[in-house]
Amino acid sequence: MNKKAYWIWYPGDWEIWLHEKVSLRREMREVIFPPFWRLDQHYSSVVFSYQYELDQPEEVTIHVDGQFSVYFDNKDNGRYHDQIVTLPAGKHEMKVAVYNKENVPTIYIDGATIFSNDKWTVSCYDKQSRKVGSWKKVLSSPQTPPSKYQLETKLQSPIKVDKINDGWFVDFGKETFGFLQLNGIKGASKVTVYYGESRAEAEDRNHCVLLDQVELDENTDINYTFAKSRAFRYVQVVSESDDFNVESIQMHYEYLPVEYRSHFRSSNQQLNQIWDTSLYTFHLNTREFFYDGIKRDRWVWSGDAYQSFLMNYYSFVDPDVVKRTLIALRGKDPIVMHINTILDYSLYWFTGIYDYYLYTGDIDFVKEQYPHMVSLLDFCLERRNEDGFMEGKSEDWVFVDWADIDNRGQVSTIQILLTRTLETMALVADIMNDKENTVSYQKQADQLRESTMKLFWDNEQQGLVHQRYQGELQKKMTKYPNIFALLYDYFDEEQKEKVKNHVLMNKDVQSIKTPYMRFFELAALCEVGEHHYVLDEMLDYWGGMLDLGATSFWEEYDPAQTEEEHYQMYDMKYGKSLCHAWGASPIYLIGKYLLGVKPLRPGYQEFIVEPELGGLDWFEGTIPVGEGEVNIYMDQEQVKVRSNFGKGLLKLRNTNDVYDIPSDHSWLEIRL
Amino acid sequence: MNKKAYWIWYPGDWEIWLHEKVSLRREMREVIFPPFWRLDQHYSSVVFSYQYELDQPEEVTIHVDGQFSVYFDNKDNGRYHDQIVTLPAGKHEMKVAVYNKENVPTIYIDGATIFSNDKWTVSCYDKQSRKVGSWKKVLSSPQTPPSKYQLETKLQSPIKVDKINDGWFVDFGKETFGFLQLNGIKGASKVTVYYGESRAEAEDRNHCVLLDQVELDENTDINYTFAKSRAFRYVQVVSESDDFNVESIQMHYEYLPVEYRSHFRSSNQQLNQIWDTSLYTFHLNTREFFYDGIKRDRWVWSGDAYQSFLMNYYSFVDPDVVKRTLIALRGKDPIVMHINTILDYSLYWFTGIYDYYLYTGDIDFVKEQYPHMVSLLDFCLERRNEDGFMEGKSEDWVFVDWADIDNRGQVSTIQILLTRTLETMALVADIMNDKENTVSYQKQADQLRESTMKLFWDNEQQGLVHQRYQGELQKKMTKYPNIFALLYDYFDEEQKEKVKNHVLMNKDVQSIKTPYMRFFELAALCEVGEHHYVLDEMLDYWGGMLDLGATSFWEEYDPAQTEEEHYQMYDMKYGKSLCHAWGASPIYLIGKYLLGVKPLRPGYQEFIVEPELGGLDWFEGTIPVGEGEVNIYMDQEQVKVRSNFGKGLLKLRNTNDVYDIPSDHSWLEIRL
Repeated sequence: MNKKAYWIWYPGDWEIWLHEKVSLRREMREVIFPPFWRLDQHYSSVVFSYQYELDQPEEVTIHVDGQFSVYFDNKDNGRYHDQIVTLPAGKHEMKVAVYNKENVPTIYIDGATIFSNDKWTVSCYDKQSRKVGSWKKVLSSPQTPPSKYQLETKLQSPIKVDKINDGWFVDFGKETFGFLQLNGIKGASKVTVYYGESRAEAEDRNHCVLLDQVELDENTDINYTFAKSRAFRYVQVVSESDDFNVESIQMHYEYLPVEYRSHFRSSNQQLNQIWDTSLYTFHLNTREFFYDGIKRDRWVWSGDAYQSFLMNYYSFVDPDVVKRTLIALRGKDPIVMHINTILDYSLYWFTGIYDYYLYTGDIDFVKEQYPHMVSLLDFCLERRNEDGFMEGKSEDWVFVDWADIDNRGQVSTIQILLTRTLETMALVADIMNDKENTVSYQKQADQLRESTMKLFWDNEQQGLVHQRYQGELQKKMTKYPNIFALLYDYFDEEQKEKVKNHVLMNKDVQSIKTPYMRFFELAALCEVGEHHYVLDEMLDYWGGMLDLGATSFWEEYDPAQTEEEHYQMYDMKYGKSLCHAWGASPIYLIGKYLLGVKPLRPGYQEFIVEPELGGLDWFEGTIPVGEGEVNIYMDQEQVKVRSNFGKGLLKLRNTNDVYDIPSDHSWLEIRL
Repeated sequence: MNKKAYWIWYPGDWEIWLHEKVSLRREMREVIFPPFWRLDQHYSSVVFSYQYELDQPEEVTIHVDGQFSVYFDNKDNGRYHDQIVTLPAGKHEMKVAVYNKENVPTIYIDGATIFSNDKWTVSCYDKQSRKVGSWKKVLSSPQTPPSKYQLETKLQSPIKVDKINDGWFVDFGKETFGFLQLNGIKGASKVTVYYGESRAEAEDRNHCVLLDQVELDENTDINYTFAKSRAFRYVQVVSESDDFNVESIQMHYEYLPVEYRSHFRSSNQQLNQIWDTSLYTFHLNTREFFYDGIKRDRWVWSGDAYQSFLMNYYSFVDPDVVKRTLIALRGKDPIVMHINTILDYSLYWFTGIYDYYLYTGDIDFVKEQYPHMVSLLDFCLERRNEDGFMEGKSEDWVFVDWADIDNRGQVSTIQILLTRTLETMALVADIMNDKENTVSYQKQADQLRESTMKLFWDNEQQGLVHQRYQGELQKKMTKYPNIFALLYDYFDEEQKEKVKNHVLMNKDVQSIKTPYMRFFELAALCEVGEHHYVLDEMLDYWGGMLDLGATSFWEEYDPAQTEEEHYQMYDMKYGKSLCHAWGASPIYLIGKYLLGVKPLRPGYQEFIVEPELGGLDWFEGTIPVGEGEVNIYMDQEQVKVRSNFGKGLLKLRNTNDVYDIPSDHSWLEIRL
């Protein structure tokens, strides 16, 4: 067996197939709830090609997910479908045609010198030949085709099981995700399981979002595992028959194996718990893809994913889940609507790719995606109005945030995101050596930035206003455009001060209520040096959820709400997700703004550390940089930094002094 | 049960799904041979909508092929998946979300006043709402979802069964298609069936194209029917075990039910047999779609189908198989290559739609296809060179014909087909009331026709030459451009005479060897009055196949070949299809040019009959016109015509006199 072989497929198709599959896992009380955007499919019929030269014939074993035929040198009337094929000596081209309607057509070919790897090409018979897709690290066993891929599981036991009248009420101690299992079944009964992220939800048989029903009898194994993975902390297991019994109840915790590569401890115990709970929340949502939340949607949303990408770089640095998510979001051509139908969500996708490159240095993926970036950008640019501004058409959802805002006409935030998109595309075009587009995109970015920053700036209010509608600039100022212009560095120094004081810290400007936009708001506040304020907000907001007993962070949290209100959302009694990826943003805020680690060049070849206590007595932490890591300790008197990768710089925020971090992994110690 | 209900789906998706399915039925000795063009897929996730107003609640039964959920008024968190749902009274919108990866998502809803019909709309979640697709006439039983659709079958017995050493050799008497059946099985054995369109093929175990293998034993039913339908006249059934026996061998003939609406008899018995065999050949290839041939490809090819459409209008006039074929050929967006990868095959598609409209008057289908026509035309027009001519790009196959021709550069035939396409599009745009495109397409057609007819006309040779390559007009003249310019009426009268004598009837111009191009050649010869010559050719060419014992007409026929050569093609001993749709062109030639029936206005509201004996003593025939038919009798002394539909004209070719055909279904009799 050749260890170098792995499964190969049409690039992106396994990811798109997997995305279609998982997108259908959303249920409302056993009823399907498909996504309200177009789901794309894999190509069912593809042909793999490989050119070789052999001194003597070689026998290869062919594993295929699908029906297949093999032929050489385009002699397509002479086809085989034997599992073992002898390749003729000499210079030849081998082709493997595969058809699979249900699963992605994939092959695994195993021979002494010839085997399936990324030197193969593939075509969907569109007269284009493309480099194959693969996941070398994981999908490399001939026994497990990519369609059989599953996350890992481990058995977990509850912390408490109470016998109730017609069944059992079980508490697993914290938010979890997986397959419930009933052990030692005796008797026959219809069994219903009511799941709850909260105790109240699991107790409410009529309103809990998730439930399973099954008929168990003597034909069932003694231990029964439910077929569908569910998000819950509590379950109520109810049997119809009185003489039905189970010995114990457990669950198979289902997870993506990741490495916890970052670390953080500080003088504040609650902050430490916020860090830990954020990581756990984030891990639960880091799966086949980055999901929004594990109980309800379980969908891939571009805006949510954009934040998850950033959190990932300060925790697991799993490149594969980022790539899978970006591929799934982009989907296939033709592009006839925005990603997730949301205009801003198309725009985040571009920056997500550039961030991936910046944090990982993986240029191959960027190159692979470039044509898809250009075509999505073309779609966006064609939707600009005559002034070059982008506005929502009737079929577009201009989201920005869940808030009382009017997004008709030209929304300033959208123009800023589009500017950032064009800048990103100029950088990527440059990487691709596409000179014409590099110049064109940069020029369009410059023009749009200039016209946007000029048009929407309100000298009276000292910030950017929200929109222009029907040719009229609207007076209403919101935080959104100001946050993004700060994050993307579009203000001059004078404007920054004004925006900080008159917009971000101004209680008269409509406040932001979603953790989603708080992510950007708190990051922007750090950008203008308000670390202390941000730390207080974190302790207050995320600490507030912990005080209510949260074991994972929520989709939305308003300290003023009652317990019942905490669970409600979207007109549903338990509609709110209590384990939502965007709730985990402290990972990013702590990593980037307290520990202060940022790449300066792709893949952390060069990086900067700008630590900031923000009011803490001390902290210590580790952030992955490239293949290594940086360790940081800081208290009131000193900063200590060391790293084993790249060229690091330490910058002290109080003096603006910059120091080289030694390249020999020794500690750099600076007295403050 | 409400009789008006029928299955509905996303428009075109059932046809595209079915096309994908049948395209994979091509096999070479049990090995799959998928098409070498991109296969498109149905949308797996769609949502159906219906707006209603009810005085009182109504109960409906929901049949779904797939997983589904029902909700009202966009309250998508309140979903059901009950089979019986009570619709609330009042004004509401009902939605049914359906997911099906394997089969097309389809629904059948049955209630007293609310049921599934073409008033429903559907979306693939691309923010577009479309009128549903359906096949009211056939797919209207709740028990049979469209994915279970099958052609009809009837049991047929062989004319001769010979016991051979290790099995049986069976002759079904003529070319047929279906599922072989072994009756009264005794014993257990591996059984192999070798199929042959010819005796030689069925006898040649090592080279016959089609074979089936199966293990039969006591677990098999006493009668075994093979799973796959095959084309054959002869089969050799071979068992491995000596004590295996069968009582009899039959086959389930599989066919599309059609009505033989035309009729032809003449003084020439062989011509009558040519007509009958053409109809049988054509019927065998008229199935889920119009196929090229039933043994080998079983694929939908646009050039082949274009001719089948025309034959259909002089035989079955089945509108549904035309529509299915046109939908399947167009496939889905994005268009990245030509139909079947062949440039000319994209162009035939447009004319195929216009012909459909002309012969059937079905304007709805044209309207439905218009956006798909515009986008395919855009794709074609973008591929023109700077002179406005279309030439093959490296990835395009410029076919024209199987012949020794050079199709590099600007091929005159292609420009003529593109001119016809633009004319067609101007007509269709006019139907659509799309004034801008009507003018634009007509203008482009006029310009291209003028520049083509001017550039390629060779005054010395008195015809159009084949191509311009690298800026140089090539001297070689072929029949192709001259044939199409004649058929589309692009020559003036003087040119017509020249082309007839110096090109079409000129033995020094490379002769045409495929029945495919002979279709157009013979039609063109009729256009210039050479009916007698065409009739002789028919008797010689198709009669020649009959003389060799053909029971269906072939993919290719060269009278000079030996028996062995007759079966060879594509480097395969039995590669040639002996039942090929394009072999059936006498249907069209007889119907259009001997009986002489042609529509003048869409749907035969007005039509002309120009009968021509072409050397026969007499003929009588019937051709369907609209919902009626026209009956024609002609001999040396008289013509008799009557019709029960539309406004008919009789034109005598010798005098050019024109007579009105009476509207009261009485005979019009003219002495010659």
